[in-house]
Amino acid sequence: MYHVTVTVKRRPVILDPQGKAVEQGARLLGFKNISNVRIDRLIEFTIQSEDQDAANEEARQLCTKLLTNPIMEDYELKISKI
Amino acid sequence: MYHVTVTVKRRPVILDPQGKAVEQGARLLGFKNISNVRIDRLIEFTIQSEDQDAANEEARQLCTKLLTNPIMEDYELKISKI
Repeated sequence: MYHVTVTVKRRPVILDPQGKAVEQGARLLGFKNISNVRIDRLIEFTIQSEDQDAANEEARQLCTKLLTNPIMEDYELKISKI
Repeated sequence: MYHVTVTVKRRPVILDPQGKAVEQGARLLGFKNISNVRIDRLIEFTIQSEDQDAANEEARQLCTKLLTNPIMEDYELKISKI
């Protein structure tokens, strides 16, 4: 079994409306020093597999087919045996 | 200036509907080995401050007042000078 952690981030050039909203909210609450807020996704899951290469390939496929939007987002995959 | 990374995770006992949806989606797409999917948030921002303790305190306050739901979520804060 493998534990997979995927960090999905929008590309830096692409606006992050959720981050902008948090930035405004922070300012309204009196936090004047906060800037460049980005909100990304951290996805964790388990793969039932005995072979690391197969698990890696499956995780990569899942990322491109379901978890990420390849047009706007980049992802980073970490895999570890459990 | 400090760069802050906050990882916000639902407590393990609390159901993650978004993760469950991804799990079902993965199964429908033919990924049979994926389980225990959890989708969490990764928040990054910059604090304009010269004092690490002050920056740390401000980040912590922002987390409890705006970024996290203390009833259902735990957060982890990493701060580094830039």
